[in-house]
Amino acid sequence: MRKFRVAIVGATGAVGREMINMVEKLNFPVSEIHFLASHRSKGKKLKFKNEEIEVKELTPEFIEKTDVEIVLMSAGGSTSKKYAPLFAKRKIYCIDNSSAWRMVPEVPLVVPEINAHTLSPQKYIIANPNCSTIQMVQALYPVHKIAKIKRIVVATYQAVSGAGQKAILELQNQARKIVETNFEKIHVSRKDISALPQQIAFNLIPQIDVFLENSFTKEEMKMVNETKKILDPEIEVTATCVRVPVIRGHSEAVNVELEREISIEEIYKAIRNGENLVLIDDIKNLKYPMPVDAHGKLPTFVGRIRKDPSRKNCWWLWIVSDNLLKGAALNAVQIAFKLIELL
Amino acid sequence: MRKFRVAIVGATGAVGREMINMVEKLNFPVSEIHFLASHRSKGKKLKFKNEEIEVKELTPEFIEKTDVEIVLMSAGGSTSKKYAPLFAKRKIYCIDNSSAWRMVPEVPLVVPEINAHTLSPQKYIIANPNCSTIQMVQALYPVHKIAKIKRIVVATYQAVSGAGQKAILELQNQARKIVETNFEKIHVSRKDISALPQQIAFNLIPQIDVFLENSFTKEEMKMVNETKKILDPEIEVTATCVRVPVIRGHSEAVNVELEREISIEEIYKAIRNGENLVLIDDIKNLKYPMPVDAHGKLPTFVGRIRKDPSRKNCWWLWIVSDNLLKGAALNAVQIAFKLIELL
Repeated sequence: MRKFRVAIVGATGAVGREMINMVEKLNFPVSEIHFLASHRSKGKKLKFKNEEIEVKELTPEFIEKTDVEIVLMSAGGSTSKKYAPLFAKRKIYCIDNSSAWRMVPEVPLVVPEINAHTLSPQKYIIANPNCSTIQMVQALYPVHKIAKIKRIVVATYQAVSGAGQKAILELQNQARKIVETNFEKIHVSRKDISALPQQIAFNLIPQIDVFLENSFTKEEMKMVNETKKILDPEIEVTATCVRVPVIRGHSEAVNVELEREISIEEIYKAIRNGENLVLIDDIKNLKYPMPVDAHGKLPTFVGRIRKDPSRKNCWWLWIVSDNLLKGAALNAVQIAFKLIELL
Repeated sequence: MRKFRVAIVGATGAVGREMINMVEKLNFPVSEIHFLASHRSKGKKLKFKNEEIEVKELTPEFIEKTDVEIVLMSAGGSTSKKYAPLFAKRKIYCIDNSSAWRMVPEVPLVVPEINAHTLSPQKYIIANPNCSTIQMVQALYPVHKIAKIKRIVVATYQAVSGAGQKAILELQNQARKIVETNFEKIHVSRKDISALPQQIAFNLIPQIDVFLENSFTKEEMKMVNETKKILDPEIEVTATCVRVPVIRGHSEAVNVELEREISIEEIYKAIRNGENLVLIDDIKNLKYPMPVDAHGKLPTFVGRIRKDPSRKNCWWLWIVSDNLLKGAALNAVQIAFKLIELL
């Protein structure tokens, strides 16, 4: 089997570290691997298959000289905007985790279980969708195939790791401080808030990413627009996205309206046969998906499936997945696997 | 002003303690107060207006002899089922916080801002609604008055205090243990889980109360049935209820479908003029309701109001309130105030 020269950009971040793990765990065929990051992380060492590899700085000069073939990038929107075209110009495939390229019409936005067919050897920039979108469309795709989805109303419960390593440390630091007061103080001081817009320990933040003109957040509109691009432009989607004091694992309460009548057995069968989906819906034994159980796991978990009697052909689903894995690193590596089938 | 002989049943519980606070803070006209609880709490002392009052055991004998006029009860369903009729038989008003009496047709189920008119001097058992229902109907009532609500789709984010004092201690204990491992371990051991069905620290539990035949939880069906009884039997309601690692303050992502077109200014005006409602919807300055800010506060807070373009006449609202106050103790004391106007 042919092996590839791979680079991971943003290797020291929360998603970057998981990209390294996933490349290793899933045995992506690597002949050579480079870890790249900003100037600040240059010289750090990260493990890959029991080897210590030094992190290099990503610069235009690196790109000009490199013989890397595939780049997995998770370094924020502005880095992606600047560097992805430089990689593409040199015909290096760049699978980008930021939101910078997702809605560009000619850029494939890929959840491999759904639309790997949009990949092509001629398209060098490939976008990895938003974490909360990936797990939702992955779980809904087998349902949509058997009974078209007309509308999705979703409320999310998103872990802090979605906002990066700093946000994880911020939740941990805030929780530690509140525990130290023996819960006498429930507010943390303003100086302990920086990675997220508000206190997150023992709190909720009904804001993820920035607010847009229509009063929705950018995160909420990502769920709307990316779902249409990946799954079906005719599906109406509306979302409220909320940050919760959970380290890893996004959860979603999803209400879908289908075009036709369908039985719960049909939905169960669709989910069970769905790729990389696990049905956990055994309420008699109090079994349903939860974020601590999804932490570190590859599949997306679906449960609490029930007919919503308030409107014809409506159903509730509860969808949980590790936002750093299927929501980011795993999906990117799965894209890379699909891509090399074409090369 | 006439003063009343009052008893608080379940005085040592999370809601009972707040009932004592509310009676004191809102200056309910009390001539004499009794604190009652189960045998286990007998002899404990609780403060009321700088006085220490000993907790007595609630027994049928106490009820037979007492000259109490109004009882505020928060002692669980089976206690309410047994004792509320004994109080009523002696023409003692019993404002009950359990779910035991809420759906009995002749029992008023009261949110004072909405349906205080259902109280009557002849009705001795009065039900206090479910916490997640109260704040939702309170916030939606002024909207429903100007543009009828057809359907409500709600996902809740409910604090552990809704499950009582033991659940608060359980979250705190679990959080302490995870902090002590420096977040190396994210699971707590099974022996640290008893008040709630699953681990709650750094996790979510998509189950509140027991599961019913239709696969919804009892909590979810309370929101459906109580909303119809309090607000309007024609409103369709559907809910997913989720426990979150927050100590106090329930939050709700609410999607409503209205019967007619309406502007955001009309909704703002309705909420601003609503009783005991506070609008916090200043997204430019990142202001929106959050549970840590609602902790210990009397009003219900509403924000993130925005038109949902996915369906005609649909809107999102984000509703937060202290579940032990407006969701329980405060609402009960407000009912008592309305009741004594009739006596």
